[in-house]
Amino acid sequence: MEPAYDHRRLGRELELFGTDPLMGAGLPYWLPDGAVVRHALEEYLRDVERSAGYRHVYSPVLGKRELYEISGHWEHYRDDMFPPMEVGAEEVVLRPSLCPHHALIYRARARSYRELPLRIAELGAMYRAELSGVLGGLTRVRGIQLNDGHVFCTGEQAVDEAGAALEMIRRAYADLGISAARYRLSLPGAGDKGGKYVDDERLWRRATALLRDVLDAAGVAYEAVEGEAAFYGPKVDVQVVDAAGREATLSTVQIDFYQPERFGLQYVGADGGKHRPVMVHRSVIGSAERAVAQLIEVHGGAFPVWLAPVQLVVMPVVEAQRGWAEEVVRRALGRGVRAEVAGAEQGSLGARIRAARYVPYQVVVGEREVQDEAVSLRLRDGRRWGASARTTWWTGSSPGSRLAAPRCGNPRRVARVGRGRTGPVRRAPREGAPRERSAHPGDHRLRHRRRRRPCPAVRRTAPGDRPARRHLRRREHRRGRRRTEHAHRAGAGGRR
Amino acid sequence: MEPAYDHRRLGRELELFGTDPLMGAGLPYWLPDGAVVRHALEEYLRDVERSAGYRHVYSPVLGKRELYEISGHWEHYRDDMFPPMEVGAEEVVLRPSLCPHHALIYRARARSYRELPLRIAELGAMYRAELSGVLGGLTRVRGIQLNDGHVFCTGEQAVDEAGAALEMIRRAYADLGISAARYRLSLPGAGDKGGKYVDDERLWRRATALLRDVLDAAGVAYEAVEGEAAFYGPKVDVQVVDAAGREATLSTVQIDFYQPERFGLQYVGADGGKHRPVMVHRSVIGSAERAVAQLIEVHGGAFPVWLAPVQLVVMPVVEAQRGWAEEVVRRALGRGVRAEVAGAEQGSLGARIRAARYVPYQVVVGEREVQDEAVSLRLRDGRRWGASARTTWWTGSSPGSRLAAPRCGNPRRVARVGRGRTGPVRRAPREGAPRERSAHPGDHRLRHRRRRRPCPAVRRTAPGDRPARRHLRRREHRRGRRRTEHAHRAGAGGRR
Repeated sequence: MEPAYDHRRLGRELELFGTDPLMGAGLPYWLPDGAVVRHALEEYLRDVERSAGYRHVYSPVLGKRELYEISGHWEHYRDDMFPPMEVGAEEVVLRPSLCPHHALIYRARARSYRELPLRIAELGAMYRAELSGVLGGLTRVRGIQLNDGHVFCTGEQAVDEAGAALEMIRRAYADLGISAARYRLSLPGAGDKGGKYVDDERLWRRATALLRDVLDAAGVAYEAVEGEAAFYGPKVDVQVVDAAGREATLSTVQIDFYQPERFGLQYVGADGGKHRPVMVHRSVIGSAERAVAQLIEVHGGAFPVWLAPVQLVVMPVVEAQRGWAEEVVRRALGRGVRAEVAGAEQGSLGARIRAARYVPYQVVVGEREVQDEAVSLRLRDGRRWGASARTTWWTGSSPGSRLAAPRCGNPRRVARVGRGRTGPVRRAPREGAPRERSAHPGDHRLRHRRRRRPCPAVRRTAPGDRPARRHLRRREHRRGRRRTEHAHRAGAGGRR
Repeated sequence: MEPAYDHRRLGRELELFGTDPLMGAGLPYWLPDGAVVRHALEEYLRDVERSAGYRHVYSPVLGKRELYEISGHWEHYRDDMFPPMEVGAEEVVLRPSLCPHHALIYRARARSYRELPLRIAELGAMYRAELSGVLGGLTRVRGIQLNDGHVFCTGEQAVDEAGAALEMIRRAYADLGISAARYRLSLPGAGDKGGKYVDDERLWRRATALLRDVLDAAGVAYEAVEGEAAFYGPKVDVQVVDAAGREATLSTVQIDFYQPERFGLQYVGADGGKHRPVMVHRSVIGSAERAVAQLIEVHGGAFPVWLAPVQLVVMPVVEAQRGWAEEVVRRALGRGVRAEVAGAEQGSLGARIRAARYVPYQVVVGEREVQDEAVSLRLRDGRRWGASARTTWWTGSSPGSRLAAPRCGNPRRVARVGRGRTGPVRRAPREGAPRERSAHPGDHRLRHRRRRRPCPAVRRTAPGDRPARRHLRRREHRRGRRRTEHAHRAGAGGRR
């Protein structure tokens, strides 16, 4: 999908994140709705990584200057680092990457070949002293929440591990609706070795050959580009394109012989002798900042259900129906759905529906719904879903407010909200499924009058569908009460 | 419960956390098992806070020096702060607290009385330049993961909001098995105002009176102690005692008139005029570091099921039974249970049971279990639970690996693991329930021979119970195969 929205504009409009000169340039804060998206994304990654055999750690964002002298950052990367601070007798610095910390955790005790591959993951902060001129939005920042991981393994395991990481990246992109623009094999600049890059020809040749094996095994086309490597080794970079057409690295897979050497990492082999492991560095979605920026731009703010800041808005037509609206929200919250009431104090019903145009599920509560203790569900593209008297609907099966992310072994389940027992239980649209393609955008007229940018789920309408759907809608309207039964019998599900 | 274990010793022994001189003093890292506990705790807090109407944000750990000049930290708290860093034209500093960031988020746009009380929460880092001599374990650290929250409200709402925060603390302690040693009303030192404390007598009187109202309404006994206030106002501190008998503040509730003034916070009242809100600062469990330290000491490493790093260990008697053991683990993982196989490569069955003595649920897979595709469950105190041919057991209903925390609207559910359909579905012990009290510690003899410290769930045995239980165990053993059916008929549940 080609992004068509600027995440900075949408981030402001949807109150996802902000900046304040008193916090500092390139240090955005995440407002509640943005924080929900980030948290849902992080929990998804945690599940995916755990399923792939990673174990998570937390390590401090500070390290002593000596640590970076060992890792090589101090020599090759110092200009991009924050200045050291003196605290007591120590000189500590905000870390420029997580790998040195993970190397220390690896060597905290003796390791056996039986433990390898040892996979460590962390969602942790790193800092980069970018020039203030280039800072902006979530993509050029000084504080970065990295989705990082390191596999400590034998030389023989390295290609398989790097290949598995590449496969994780591809699956995550499919789940998130993100497309890779291209795969890049990032090599050192020809004349740069010794300065910007570690000077060890054998190391570069060996790691580059392995990464080419990984890319060939994965069957992806790639370009080799000089001058884009990490200082310690070559990288496979997965490039994405933003709304302005600019390319950036989102994900990366690296095979590193240098840091295991520098940190003197070892494992005891089957032969009883000491051996040097290899480090595979990988990031599935890069940083929370860049990933969420990309998600905003790709989905135009209309996030997939499991990432949506608010998943359900319940709108009483008039204040008298507020009681049942609140009860519906209470039940939804109890089932882990992020739900809210939008009452009459927020304006006319039309205005509230328009304001909720990014919310995947909407419920309008009128007199009849209160009487029947029922709800009928509206999708953000205007279609009705699973409508029935005493309707049932899906809820996430998660105990928290997070709906299950795809692929985490948790098919969405269906639960009842109304007291009734009449309606059959319906399947919800699959989570990983593409967003609903609109058939009849309910708030079409209003939108145009106000010249607001519509929800992108609505904009992606197949034009030919509209007249027929509009006709159906008018007919349903005439049928009045029977409308719900009609939709019910017709099996009007969320997917068509 | 009086803590009886040193969290530093247990933290090492159970590989929960560690330190490395290259990361810096007072900057522990969390090993995978410790990280699971911390993450489960943080998700629990997130759910509790969201249910209480808080919305979560993420804000950067850095702020400009000017920010702390406004907040008053620079004047009153500088000695405890990390030194500022120059980055480009800016001078930024690791934050000494989260409240200034939340005040900036509050004033990022105009606020109406309709939005109040506005509750913001964050699990975020703050830094304190403690002297290196006092650093150690998880309780004296330089980087602190604070469970912080701020309520922006009218003066009339402040007592209710502070009271609700106090109630959250009490409920969280009950869920976590932590006891408050005492409640402290922390006041400024008599002669300190103007230096260590803000010099505004009216402010101190007003805030202190409100906090007394909060404590009286909550009906808790408290002591007023001078010299323990925050620089900007008095505090209610909830004190806990560690294994060494030392008292420390875990949780806090504060009413603050000072920072709203300094940041010029406003809301538009019902009268259309501008008014100054009050800030209620509160922390439910203090920091992740101190809370987990306390949990380790209180539970002696035998965490409640929902916090346990590993919830289920499956032990095949011999390698031939590994297939079914792995299948059981696969099914458990799919249901969100943190499960592992402990195979024969890890030693004799006795050694493995001993190694798993902190794991709440254990399954031994022998020939019969493989044949029947069944499991029978053993609790960490040696008792059997819910045993039956083709047994059923509980699993968490969470999609991730986290079992539901108490009080989050998610009663534990029971799911089948075996293929069979014979056994009735059993209720699991309630999550918030106290730990199992041992009746017959199965590995009693082994434990003593090896002089290992037993699982505390085992140690807390009512001595009178033992002979009878031992007798029962021998009898059951003689009955051989019938043992499982016996336990089943007897309804041997997890709680007695």
